[in-house]
Amino acid sequence: MKWVMPFEAGNAKLKETLGGKGANLAEMTKAGLPVPPGFTVTTDACRAFYAAGKTMPNGLLDDIRQAMTELEAKKQETFGDSERPLLVSVRSGSVSSMPGMMDTILNLGLNDVTVRGLARQTGDERFAYDCYRRLVQMFGNVVFNVESHMFEHALKRYKKDRGFTEDGEMTAADWMQMIDQYKAIIERQTNRVFPQNVYEQLALAVDAVFRSWNNQRAIVYRNLYNIPEAQGTAVNVQSMVFGNRGDDSGTGVVFTRNPSTGEAVLFGEYLTKAQGEDVVAGVRTPLAVALLQQEMPVVYDQLLETAQRLERHYKDMQDIEFTVEKGTLFILQTRNGKRTAKAAVRIAVQLEQEGLITKEEALQRIEMEHLNQLLHRAIEGEDKLDVIATGLPASPGAASGMAVFDADTAEAWGRSGKKVILVTEETSPEDIHGVIAAEGVVTSRGGMTSHAAVVARGMGKPCICGCEKLRINDEERAFVVDGVRIAEGDIISIDGATGRLIRGAVKLREPEIDGDLSQLLEWADEVRTLGVQANADNPEDAAKARQFGAEGIGLCRTEHMFMSQDRLPVVQEMILAENETDRRSALARLLPMQRADFDGMLRAMEGLPVTIRLLDPPLHEFLPNLEELLLRHQALVLGGTANEPEGEQKRLEQLIRKVRQLHESNPMLGHRGCRLGIVFPEIYEMQVEAILLAAADCKRDGVDVRPDIMVPLVGHVNELKLMRETIEAVALRVQEAAGTAVPFRIGTMIEVPRAALTAKDIAQYADFFSFGTNDLTQMTFGYSRDDAEGKFLTHYVDTKLLPANPFEVLDEDGVGQLIDLAVTKGRAANPTLKTGVCGEHGGNKQSILFCRATGVDYVSCSPYRVPLARIAAAQAELVVRDREAKAAKEAAAASEPQASGKAEEMAVR
Amino acid sequence: MKWVMPFEAGNAKLKETLGGKGANLAEMTKAGLPVPPGFTVTTDACRAFYAAGKTMPNGLLDDIRQAMTELEAKKQETFGDSERPLLVSVRSGSVSSMPGMMDTILNLGLNDVTVRGLARQTGDERFAYDCYRRLVQMFGNVVFNVESHMFEHALKRYKKDRGFTEDGEMTAADWMQMIDQYKAIIERQTNRVFPQNVYEQLALAVDAVFRSWNNQRAIVYRNLYNIPEAQGTAVNVQSMVFGNRGDDSGTGVVFTRNPSTGEAVLFGEYLTKAQGEDVVAGVRTPLAVALLQQEMPVVYDQLLETAQRLERHYKDMQDIEFTVEKGTLFILQTRNGKRTAKAAVRIAVQLEQEGLITKEEALQRIEMEHLNQLLHRAIEGEDKLDVIATGLPASPGAASGMAVFDADTAEAWGRSGKKVILVTEETSPEDIHGVIAAEGVVTSRGGMTSHAAVVARGMGKPCICGCEKLRINDEERAFVVDGVRIAEGDIISIDGATGRLIRGAVKLREPEIDGDLSQLLEWADEVRTLGVQANADNPEDAAKARQFGAEGIGLCRTEHMFMSQDRLPVVQEMILAENETDRRSALARLLPMQRADFDGMLRAMEGLPVTIRLLDPPLHEFLPNLEELLLRHQALVLGGTANEPEGEQKRLEQLIRKVRQLHESNPMLGHRGCRLGIVFPEIYEMQVEAILLAAADCKRDGVDVRPDIMVPLVGHVNELKLMRETIEAVALRVQEAAGTAVPFRIGTMIEVPRAALTAKDIAQYADFFSFGTNDLTQMTFGYSRDDAEGKFLTHYVDTKLLPANPFEVLDEDGVGQLIDLAVTKGRAANPTLKTGVCGEHGGNKQSILFCRATGVDYVSCSPYRVPLARIAAAQAELVVRDREAKAAKEAAAASEPQASGKAEEMAVR
Repeated sequence: MKWVMPFEAGNAKLKETLGGKGANLAEMTKAGLPVPPGFTVTTDACRAFYAAGKTMPNGLLDDIRQAMTELEAKKQETFGDSERPLLVSVRSGSVSSMPGMMDTILNLGLNDVTVRGLARQTGDERFAYDCYRRLVQMFGNVVFNVESHMFEHALKRYKKDRGFTEDGEMTAADWMQMIDQYKAIIERQTNRVFPQNVYEQLALAVDAVFRSWNNQRAIVYRNLYNIPEAQGTAVNVQSMVFGNRGDDSGTGVVFTRNPSTGEAVLFGEYLTKAQGEDVVAGVRTPLAVALLQQEMPVVYDQLLETAQRLERHYKDMQDIEFTVEKGTLFILQTRNGKRTAKAAVRIAVQLEQEGLITKEEALQRIEMEHLNQLLHRAIEGEDKLDVIATGLPASPGAASGMAVFDADTAEAWGRSGKKVILVTEETSPEDIHGVIAAEGVVTSRGGMTSHAAVVARGMGKPCICGCEKLRINDEERAFVVDGVRIAEGDIISIDGATGRLIRGAVKLREPEIDGDLSQLLEWADEVRTLGVQANADNPEDAAKARQFGAEGIGLCRTEHMFMSQDRLPVVQEMILAENETDRRSALARLLPMQRADFDGMLRAMEGLPVTIRLLDPPLHEFLPNLEELLLRHQALVLGGTANEPEGEQKRLEQLIRKVRQLHESNPMLGHRGCRLGIVFPEIYEMQVEAILLAAADCKRDGVDVRPDIMVPLVGHVNELKLMRETIEAVALRVQEAAGTAVPFRIGTMIEVPRAALTAKDIAQYADFFSFGTNDLTQMTFGYSRDDAEGKFLTHYVDTKLLPANPFEVLDEDGVGQLIDLAVTKGRAANPTLKTGVCGEHGGNKQSILFCRATGVDYVSCSPYRVPLARIAAAQAELVVRDREAKAAKEAAAASEPQASGKAEEMAVR
Repeated sequence: MKWVMPFEAGNAKLKETLGGKGANLAEMTKAGLPVPPGFTVTTDACRAFYAAGKTMPNGLLDDIRQAMTELEAKKQETFGDSERPLLVSVRSGSVSSMPGMMDTILNLGLNDVTVRGLARQTGDERFAYDCYRRLVQMFGNVVFNVESHMFEHALKRYKKDRGFTEDGEMTAADWMQMIDQYKAIIERQTNRVFPQNVYEQLALAVDAVFRSWNNQRAIVYRNLYNIPEAQGTAVNVQSMVFGNRGDDSGTGVVFTRNPSTGEAVLFGEYLTKAQGEDVVAGVRTPLAVALLQQEMPVVYDQLLETAQRLERHYKDMQDIEFTVEKGTLFILQTRNGKRTAKAAVRIAVQLEQEGLITKEEALQRIEMEHLNQLLHRAIEGEDKLDVIATGLPASPGAASGMAVFDADTAEAWGRSGKKVILVTEETSPEDIHGVIAAEGVVTSRGGMTSHAAVVARGMGKPCICGCEKLRINDEERAFVVDGVRIAEGDIISIDGATGRLIRGAVKLREPEIDGDLSQLLEWADEVRTLGVQANADNPEDAAKARQFGAEGIGLCRTEHMFMSQDRLPVVQEMILAENETDRRSALARLLPMQRADFDGMLRAMEGLPVTIRLLDPPLHEFLPNLEELLLRHQALVLGGTANEPEGEQKRLEQLIRKVRQLHESNPMLGHRGCRLGIVFPEIYEMQVEAILLAAADCKRDGVDVRPDIMVPLVGHVNELKLMRETIEAVALRVQEAAGTAVPFRIGTMIEVPRAALTAKDIAQYADFFSFGTNDLTQMTFGYSRDDAEGKFLTHYVDTKLLPANPFEVLDEDGVGQLIDLAVTKGRAANPTLKTGVCGEHGGNKQSILFCRATGVDYVSCSPYRVPLARIAAAQAELVVRDREAKAAKEAAAASEPQASGKAEEMAVR
C-alpha cells in the first residue's frame, strides 16, 4: 500500500507522513494499548491529490479498500454489511495542530440497510437511527457544505410540532423521519443525494478532508503561523467504539497527575452510558474517575495501568480520552496535559525524582509563562470578580488599593500608609515617585512598552495599560468606565497578568519560591553557562535581585535617583544654571545624595559587580512640560488667574526660555548619554566621584565592592577614550583624597548602531560592553518606541508584517547581527572584554537563547525576571548543546562520505 | 655625513628625511636653479635628539661642521671670519606644513668681530649693524625665549629719546648702542650671554628648532591634524643673500601666470633695495615685475627663464620668491601658486593644451571650492560693502532684495515681481513657498544643516544661517543688528559663500560655464565611471539639472509638492479625514495635481530615469503647530480675543485633538515613510496612479519616460514586498485604464540601519537601492540632525572628537560600512541591482570618492552641485585607478619575492 498505513505499522517519528494524530494513534497501537484499529491516509496522498488537480491519485482508492479489508478482518465486521456492519470515523490530521480544517465524521458506513444491522446487533434501534441521522447531518455539512443550522432548524420544528423538549424524547421512528427530512434538505440545497454506497461515503469524506486543507480559514491560519502549504494533511480512518451502549459502557477523560497541584494520583471524570461529546456538553455531571474503581474495578485497573504506561512512554503527565464499550476499555487519544504553573514545576521535579526524566529534561519542561505566574501575586479564587474594564496585561501580578489620579497624591497617601493604585492617562518620568508609592498602575493610553509598562515591569508591580474605555476626569477626581464611576479613594483591584480592572478588593495569593522551584533553579544554575544579573536602581531592588539569584547588577540607572521629590529641585537648579560655577554648586549638593545611593547599592551586592550607568536622559526630562508652562504664562498675562505671587511671570519666562533652549525635535537622538558628559564634564565627574567615594567607604568597612562604571550612548571611539580619561582623572583624585585605591572597571553601553559597527575600535578602551537592546532596536529599526506602538507597530505585528514586536523579542536578523558583529570584533580587539545584554530582552526566553548562542557572557533583567532568566539560560544551554551535537554528527558524517559510499557499494555487490 | 645633507645631494622625494622646505630647496638646486647654497639637518637627527633625551646625537655637530666647511668653499667665505664672514639663515622645516614651530633666524654668524668684516665687505656699516641687531633680537627671542616686546620697547624708547620716528633715521652708531642694550636685556632676563662663538650660535639654533617641535602650539596643531609625533622636524641652514645692498639689489614675488585670470604672463612685484619682509610689510609700494625688464633686462630674462623652468618642472603655476643681490638672481622659494576659481580652471586647461599635463592631471588640479564659486552668483567688486552682520555661510551665492519677515509675504511680494530676501528666526517645511519665492534666506538660528540651509542648498539659493546678532521684531516688521535697523521692504544683500549680510544693493556677477569649464567637464565625463544624477522636485529644477549635465533625477521628493499654498488645505483635509472614504475623496482631488507634477518632471527628463520617492514625512508636518493652537484656544476661552467667528473654538478643539493624536516624541523615528503607505495604502496608491498616468500620457505623446518608484524608510523585507504588491496592483489597473503599459522600476531608500544589514533579503524585491545617507547617518550615529548641531555636534567637531561633521562628510567607518555591506549583499542576491547615494553627501568630494571605491553606481545631488560632482567623480576615478595600479604592483612584487631575492643573491656573488 503506497498511500495508506495501518496504525500498527506507524510510529511517532512518522509525523511528517501520518500527521500529528495519526502518528500518535500509531505510537499507542505499537505500544500495545487498546486503541480501536484503523489506518491513516498519508500526507503524501494529499500532496498527490493537489498535484493531480484535486483528484484522487492513482491507486489511493485501491489502497483504502485493501486497508478496509484488513480492518474488517480485525474487527470481524464488514463495511456495508447488513448484519455486522463496520463503522468508522474519518478525521483530518495535519502535521502541525491546525484549527479551521474539516474535523470529524462519525458513524461512516451507515446507510438504509446497515442501520438495521446495527440496530439488530446492539439490540437498540433508537441508538442505531440516532447514529445514522448524526452521520447524515455531519456528512451533509462537511462534505456537501449544507449549513448546520438547516438541520438543527428542522429538528427543532419537528420536536416543537410534537411538544418534545429533549432529544431523549425522540424514538427510533422519530429519528427515521428526521433522516428522511435531512436527506431531503441535502437534495434541495445541493442537488446531490446522500450516498448509500459506503465506499462512496468514504471516498467523498477523504476528498472533503483534502479539500479542507485549502479552505479560507485554513489558509489564514497557515499564513499566520508560517505553516508551509506543501505540508498537506493526513486522514485518519478508525473503527467506531460506543460508550453509550449500556451501563457497562461509558466515556471519560483522565490526567495521570493532578493538573492543578501536580500530585501523583489519577485524576479525571467518567460518565456512564455516554459518548465523548456528552462529557464536554455538560448535560449530566460526570463522576470522579475514582468511582469507576467501584463500578468496574477491572476496567479501572486497566485504565490505571494504561495511564502509567502512557506516562512512562511519553515521559510526561498525560491527558487521556477513553471509552468503555461493553466493559472493554479503548484509548482514543493521549496528549501532554495542560497544567497550572504550580503543577508544572512539581511534576517536572517529581518525574526527575522518579527517574523518568533527567534534570535537563525537567528544565526543558518549564514554560516561562508558568514561572511568571508563580513569581507574582495573583488573585486567589476567581468566582465573584466585578470586572469593569480590560486593558493590556502590561506587567503581571495583582493588587488592590484606593484609586488615585496623580503621582503626588499617590506619594502622599502612600506615606500615610494607604495602599493606592495610580490611575492616569499615561505616566512620564516625572511621575516615578507616584509609581514607587503605588501598589499598581492603570493607564488609559499607551501600549505594552509604554513608560508605565516598562517602569512597572522593572519594579515588579502590576500594571494595566491602554485601558481605553476609561474616562478620567481630573477635576472631579473620578473616572467613569461603561457607566461605572470610581471616585478617588474607592477601592479597585487589578490583575496585570490578564489586564482586568476590578471594582472592590480581591483576595491575593503571595508569590513563593517553594521547594520544587528552588530545586529547578538549582538545576538551572548547574546547567547554564550564561550569567544572569539584574537591573536595579536602589538598594531594595538590589537586595530583591540577589535573593532571586542575580549574580550582580547589570544596569543601575542613575537618572532614577535624580527623580525623587527631594532631589528634583536641586537637579533643576543644576540644569538652569547659567554658568559652570552655578552648575558645580548644585552638583556639589547632589554629590552626598548620590554617594549614599551608591553606598547602599554596593553593600547590597557585596562581592558581586554593580554596573552603574552615568546620567543618560536629555536634561529637559527633568524640567516641566513646555505646553503647560506656556498656558500658565498666557493665563497670567491675560489676567485669568489672580492669586499668583509677584515675580511668578518672570520666573515662568525664564523657565520657558530654558525649556525652549533644551527642547529637541527628536530627544531620543539628541543631547543625552555621554554627549552630556562630554559637553558638561562636571556632571559625570560628580557621579564618578560619588561612586568611588562610596566604594572607598565600603572598602574601609571591609566590604568587597566591585563597581563597574558604564558610559552610555557611545557612538565613536573618541567619546569613550575621552570619558575614560575623565573617569581615570577623577579616580586618581579620589584615591588621593580617600587614601585608598578601589578597583573598578570602565565600559560602555552598545546601543548606537555605529558603536556596534566600530566595536573593534571601541573595545580598546572598554573593559566591558553592555548591549542596550532597547535603544539599539530603536535606532536599528528607526522606530521610536514611544510612538511606534500606537501608530504602526501593532498593525505590523497584527498583520504579521513583522514576526514579533522587536521590543519584546530581539530581532536576530538585524539587531542580532549587530550584537554578533560587536561581540566578535570586540573580543578580537580585546580578549578580556566582558559582554552582556541589559535591555528588556534580557528577560525574554527567545532572546536569551540568542544571547547564549552568540556567546554573550550575561544577561541582565528586572529582579522579578531573574528566576525566569536562570531557567531560560539553562534551556538555552541545552538547545545549544543539542545543536552542537547535531552539527558535530553531521560534520562527522560529511567527513566520511566516501567510506560509507563504499560500504553501500559493497553491500550492493 | 650621517645627519646632514647638502641641498645638491637631495631631491623632492626625500621629504620624509629633509622636511618640505628642505626637499624643495634640494629639488631646485638639483634643477640647476640659482638657490643660495646650504644644507639640511635631517629629521633623523631630530628623532635621535629626542631619543637621547634632548641632547645632540653623537656626530651631529661634526657633520654640521663638515657641511659648513663645504659651504665655505662654495661661497668662498668663512664662518666666523673677520674679513669675509659667511652668514647663514636657520629655519625649521617639518614634513607636513606646521605653524607654531620656531621659524627663522637670519644673519647667523655675526658677532662683534664679523660684523665689522660685513661692514667692510659691503661698504655699508649701517647695514651690517642693523643685520647684527636683528640677529641678536631673533636669537634672544627664539633661542633664549626672551619676549619680543622687550626688544621692541627698548628700540621705541631709544628712538623717542632722540626724536626719531622711523628706523631709517637710525645710524650705524645708533644700532651699535641698541645691540648693547639687546645683549643686556638677554643677560638680565636669562642670565645667559649672546654667544660670540659662531658655532655655538649654530648649535644653539639647531637645538632650538628641535625643541620647538615639542612646544605647546606645535603639539596642539599636531593633535589637531593627526601628525605623528615621531615625524620630527628638519633644520635648513642656508647662506644669506641680501636684497638691500644697493640699487642693483632687490627682492620680489612673481607668479608664472596671472593668478586672477589665469592669463599666461609673468605677474608679480619687485622692490629695489629691499629685503623680503619689506615687500610684505607694505612700507613702500612695490613695482610691477615688468619694470624689472627695463631696469635689469638680464636679470629679468633670467627670472623669466627660471620661472618657466620651474613651471615646467613642477607642472603647475608657481609662486616664486626671489632676491637680486648686486645684480645676481637668487631663488629663495617656489610653490604652487594660489589662484582664483576662474584662473584655476583656465590654467588647468591651458597646461593640458601646452602638453605639460594630461587631461587626467588637469582634472586633479581642480578644487571643489573653486567650482562652487564659479557656479553661483557672486558679488562683483568688494570695495564699499556695508556689512552689518556675519552668519554661517550656509549656501553659496549672492543676492539682493527687499527684506521680508514671513513666507506668505515673501510669496505675495514675489508674485508681484519684487525681489525679496526672507529674514526669519528659522524656517520649517511650512515656509517652503516663501523660500521658493525669495532670492535668498537669512535665519538668526540654526546651523549649516538646518532646514533653511538644506532647502536653500537644494534650490541653489544663497543662505546665511545662525546670524545670532539679528533681533527680529515681527510686530514692527523690522530687524535690528548692532544698532542698525532694517524695516520690511528695505534692500539688503547677502553673500552665502562668506555669510555676510550687507545693507543696500550690490552688483552681482552671474555664474557661467565658460569654454574652459566646459572642456574640463567634458574630460571629466570621459574619465568617470560613477553616474551623476540630481535631486529635483519640480520641472524647472529638473531642466536646470539636465543643463548642468545630470544623467537623471536620483531623488524627487513628493512632499515638497504637497506644501504649496493651493494644495496644503487639501492635504490637511486628507489628514483630518476621520475615515477612509473622506480620505480617498481628498486624495482624489490631489491626484490630478500630482499627475501634472509628474508629467512635467518626466518630460523634462526625457530618456533619463526619474526616481520618485513616495510620501515620506510624518503627517503632522502638514498641520499647524500645537503650541500655537493651544495658545489660540486658551485665548479664545479666556475671552482675550473677541472677534473670532462662531464655531472657531470647536474647530480649534478638533484640530488640537488631531494634532495631539499625530504628535510624536521622536518624529524622525515615527510614523513616516512606507509606514504611512502600509497603514494608509490609499495615499501611496494615489501617488503611484498619478505617476503611471502621467507616464502613460507622455508615452502617448511619443516621449520616452523612465519612472523609478522609490519606497522610503524600508527596514524589513516584508515592507517592500507588500509595497511592491500594492504598486504592481495599481500598475495593472492603470495599464487597463490607459490601454498601454509603461515600463517602470521599483526600488527603495536604504536609510534605516536594519535595511542595510538585511540587504540580501530586501534586494530580492528591489530593482534599485538609493542610500539616503542623511537619515542613515542620523540613525547610525543616533544623532537628530535638527538637534545635534546646536547642542553637541559643533563641540564634537571643534574639539576634533569627530574628524568631520558626518552630515557633510560621509562617515566611512560606520555609515560607510553599512553602505559597503548593503551593496555587496544586495548585489549578491540581485545581480542587476542598481545602487546610488542621494543624500547631501552625493555632492561632497570625499564622499564621492568613497562611493566610487565602494562600487556604488551613481550619486545624486542638488542641480547646482552636479558639475562639481562630475569633476569629483572623475577625480575619484583617478584615485581609484592609482590605488589599483599600486595594489597590482605590490601584488606582483609579493608574488615573486624569491625570484628577486635570488637575483640579489646572484648580484652579491
